[in-house]
This record gives sequence, C-alpha cells and structure tokens, in this order.
Amino acid sequence: MKKLVCGVDLGGTKINTGIMDSDGNILYNVKVPTEADKGPQHVINNIKKSIIDSLKNTKLEIDQIAGIGIGAPGPLNADSGVVECPPNLPGWIDIHLVDILKQEFNTEIKLNNDANAAALAEHLFGAGQGIDDMVYVTVSTGIGGGAIIGGKLYNGANSNAAEIGHHSINFDGPRWCNCGNPGCLESYASGTSLVKFAKKYIESGRDTILKNIPMDELKAENIFDAAKSGDELALKLIENEAFYLGVGIVNIMAFYNPKRIIIGGGLSSQWDVLYDKMMKTVKDRALKPNREICDVVKAKLGGDVGLIGAAALVL
Amino acid sequence: MKKLVCGVDLGGTKINTGIMDSDGNILYNVKVPTEADKGPQHVINNIKKSIIDSLKNTKLEIDQIAGIGIGAPGPLNADSGVVECPPNLPGWIDIHLVDILKQEFNTEIKLNNDANAAALAEHLFGAGQGIDDMVYVTVSTGIGGGAIIGGKLYNGANSNAAEIGHHSINFDGPRWCNCGNPGCLESYASGTSLVKFAKKYIESGRDTILKNIPMDELKAENIFDAAKSGDELALKLIENEAFYLGVGIVNIMAFYNPKRIIIGGGLSSQWDVLYDKMMKTVKDRALKPNREICDVVKAKLGGDVGLIGAAALVL
Repeated sequence: MKKLVCGVDLGGTKINTGIMDSDGNILYNVKVPTEADKGPQHVINNIKKSIIDSLKNTKLEIDQIAGIGIGAPGPLNADSGVVECPPNLPGWIDIHLVDILKQEFNTEIKLNNDANAAALAEHLFGAGQGIDDMVYVTVSTGIGGGAIIGGKLYNGANSNAAEIGHHSINFDGPRWCNCGNPGCLESYASGTSLVKFAKKYIESGRDTILKNIPMDELKAENIFDAAKSGDELALKLIENEAFYLGVGIVNIMAFYNPKRIIIGGGLSSQWDVLYDKMMKTVKDRALKPNREICDVVKAKLGGDVGLIGAAALVL
Repeated sequence: MKKLVCGVDLGGTKINTGIMDSDGNILYNVKVPTEADKGPQHVINNIKKSIIDSLKNTKLEIDQIAGIGIGAPGPLNADSGVVECPPNLPGWIDIHLVDILKQEFNTEIKLNNDANAAALAEHLFGAGQGIDDMVYVTVSTGIGGGAIIGGKLYNGANSNAAEIGHHSINFDGPRWCNCGNPGCLESYASGTSLVKFAKKYIESGRDTILKNIPMDELKAENIFDAAKSGDELALKLIENEAFYLGVGIVNIMAFYNPKRIIIGGGLSSQWDVLYDKMMKTVKDRALKPNREICDVVKAKLGGDVGLIGAAALVL
C-alpha cells in the first residue's frame, strides 16, 4: 500500500500544505498567507490549521499518515527541529517547531531547509531521478542549494550544507547580501541582484527602455522582456547574469563533482535565454573531468517543489 | 589480528612506498625518485620495485597483506583505476595503473587522488579522528582537498570531488593556474602563488630584503623569514596569503558545512603566523551557524600523510 505523508512548505509570504502519496502525487493542498508580521505564535497556528484542513479534506486521521515534513527558511537545525533565525520570519529565534507541532500531532515530524527539501523532491520525483550525486540550485529572489550525496540528502554538521548562494565568487565584490560574505553568488546572480545592477546602470544615466518603469516596480522579468525586445542594457545584464551563474556552476563542479546540476526557482523560467551563455562559461572554466561527467538541466517540478520536498522528508 | 596493507604515494618527484598496520603505524617505507621524465613505463617499474622492496624488507608475501593502495596526482578515476592526465606526470594519459599492477600483484589494489588519500589518513589517524564530516586541505606548491562525508571519503561522480584549489574566489582573478579557472584559490593562496605575487611586487620596484635573493631561487619560506625580520612587503604578502586562505575556508564552510577543516601541506608549518589572520577573515565573512559548528585545525600527520592515506584506501 502507498504511504501517505503531509508536507508543509513554510515561506515568508505563504504556507503551502498538503497530502502526498509515496509516488510524489499531491492528493490535496492548500495555500494560506504566512502572516509573518504577526509573529511566530500566529504563524504556527496557521501551520496547524493548514495541516488539520489537509487531513480533513482528504478524510485522513493523523495515524493514517506516515508523518509530517516541514521545509522552512534557514538557518535551522534539522536534527533538533529548531528554526534558528530566518531573515524573512521576523521574531523567529530558536523556535522548537518540531516539538511544538508534536504536542498537537502524534506522528513523526521532520524539519529541513527549504532548498534541501526541494533538492530531495527533484531527486525523488523530478530531474534528478536515479542520480545519486546531484546538486539542486534555486535561483529566485535569493539563491539556495541542496546536495544529494550517495543518494541521500546531505545536511552537513548542522543542516547548513550547500549554502551555495553565500559562497563568494569575488572576495572584493558587493556587500549587499546580509549573509556578510562580500561577492557571494546571491549578490551577483539572484533575481534581486539582477534588478540592483539594472538600477545602478539606470542611476548612472545609461539609456534603456527600463527607464520607463518606476524604479520601485522594476522586476527581473522586466529585464528579460526588455532584452527580448533588443534593449542593449538589458542584453548586457542578461549576459552578465548567465556569466555569474556559470561561475557558480563551475565552483559547484569543483566542490561536489556531481553527475547532475539542476537549476530551479523563478529565473529558471528563462532557461532558453540563459542556458547557452551559462554553459559557455562552464566550458571555458570548469575542470575537464568534472565538466564532462556532469549535465546541467532545468528543474522539472514546478511551484509545488517545496511542498513535495517537505513531504518527502518523511518518506 | 591486525591487517597489514601496502601504500604507494606517487608524487611528481618521489615515490614513497611502505607497509602499514591497521592502526596507521608504518612498519617500513622506502622513498625512491619518480623519474617522471623517463615516462610511464619507467615510473611503473619504479613503483613495482618499491612494492617488492617493501614486502621483502618486512618479510611478507603478497597474500599476507590485505591489499595495495595508491595515492596519485589527479585527474584520475578511482572506480576504474585509471590515471588520466596529471600535469606533473608527463606522458601519463589514461594509464590503467590498477590493472597493470594487478598483473604483478595478486591482491586488492585501490587508486585515489593524493589529496583524497591524505584526507582519509587525517580522518582515520590524524586530526580528524571521530569527525564524520570534515574537509582536508593541503596548501603547498598547489592546493588540493579531500572531503569526508558521513564518515566516508567522498569521491564524487568521477573521483574529482573537493577540487578546492580550483574553485574561483575571484572570477576576474589571475589566469596563471593551468586548471583554466581564473582566480582559483590555488592561484591566490598556494606557495607558488605567494612567490609569484612577491616577484610581481619586486619587479614593480618595491623595496624589500627579498631583492637580495636571486628571483629564480625565491621560495615561500624566504617570504615567511623576511616577514619575521619585519620586512614590510613580506608582511603584506603574508597578510594577503592568510586572507585568501580565509576566503577559501569561508567557501568550504558554505558548501560542506563541515565539523572540522584540517589544513596540511608545506604552508601549514607556518600555522602560528597564519592562523589568527586567517580566522579573522572567517569570522568576518562565514555564515554564523556554519562558522560556529566548525573548527579549523592544523594537520597532525607529517610528511608520510600521503603514504598513510594510500595504504588506508584498502583498510
């Protein structure tokens, strides 16, 4: 018989909760606002309600599921089930989320980093099926990562392995990421950074159709659109974006020597625009054996990857 | 009863071969010149002779040892036992070293990267005992690395994991490393690079006592000596060296989230000069949870670390 599990993808703006079977099929899910500004207790109540709602709508009792998996923003400790101090969950300082939820739900409960959970999801049900050594990278407002090593999710000493977004690709680079590491990959290649670079150029007087968009409304997709219509600045920004991602991939290959690198997150929707440029940098710079053994592919699972990964934590 | 194993540390200039017991004690070892310039067949004969010599001097027959482990310069393939094309072994292109030696020695034979072997040695018998998630870095003429993950040597998809020396810490950095990746850690922080930076300053007319040394004889230890006598340029070079190593450590922490990082190789003999400066950079830049869980220590095993690691491959 198939196992059923509950997954909770806890994000800064929404909570995506649902019931999944052991083949990765979502039987039911519900998205509710996180309401992070109302503090941890309120958010935890929202999580509880969404779990109860998911069980009710699938007519399941708690003892009919194999457990609850939670993907949450880091830093956190997967072993102790403690959410430490995620920047986008204000007031969350060392919240013993697993213990708190265990008081309500008598089942196995596991917690992990959202990017780690997504890596597991792609490994089990997406673009990484059958690949024992793979790295998942999500490129969106930020950059996160998760590594599967020997077929297992690699957590590291305290669940903070594969913090790929916060390794420095230029020790003299910009310090605008709150991780504290100048020139980290996220500060070059995230969607947020793409917009920051655009704004810097525009402020310096560079001509571009992006000037027609109010600066506080400028988004990464506007830059991709402008590039498609031939805007020179936008084209240059996309060129740089692909280059920085390529540099990140080269470093991932040097560290992990994976068989596959899977790119997900919002910016992966621009795969056709980015892929060739990105791989040119990889070809130019990566160690030959590391490059030849590894393919770089787009993530397969869509917006529910976080939920699927969270649920997969208890499979 | 203790197992006995044979180890071969194949380097560009010498081969260190010996017999070790399962507690990491070397019972006998012999160092012979590699004579790499005479080509693969000659080097392989030197390896064979050194193995026969080791067995003879310990009065062992081949069936009395559990196997032969070989640590060799990469790139190589540990699974297939093939040495691919190491820059410091001219003429070695896809040499099936394990198969060739098996024709002579009827025992288990294993091959791995020399830095991986050294990582295993430090894990089993040195500064990494009891630490399941650790990274070993050797800083010498080059920079190599090896990762122990979940208590096991992590090889990656084709035995080229933890190529830490060739991850870029500045995508715009110097291109003087033959790995092809501009600004790789090795091109900033190896002993060779330390000397290169010194020469660049001297050529630009910078005043320093290092000018008294003929340029083609200048070595890393001269720079450390000059710094100890208060030479300003040398002090600045050491400061930079420690900074670059710190940046490398920060990135290792972000990727692997290890419990311990162990630094070996020639430059680790300058531990007291480098440590505080290096750790200042780590404190300034590394993610807090990754930094707090991890200590950075000096390697314990000395010049025979390669031999011990090679032998340990068959334990």
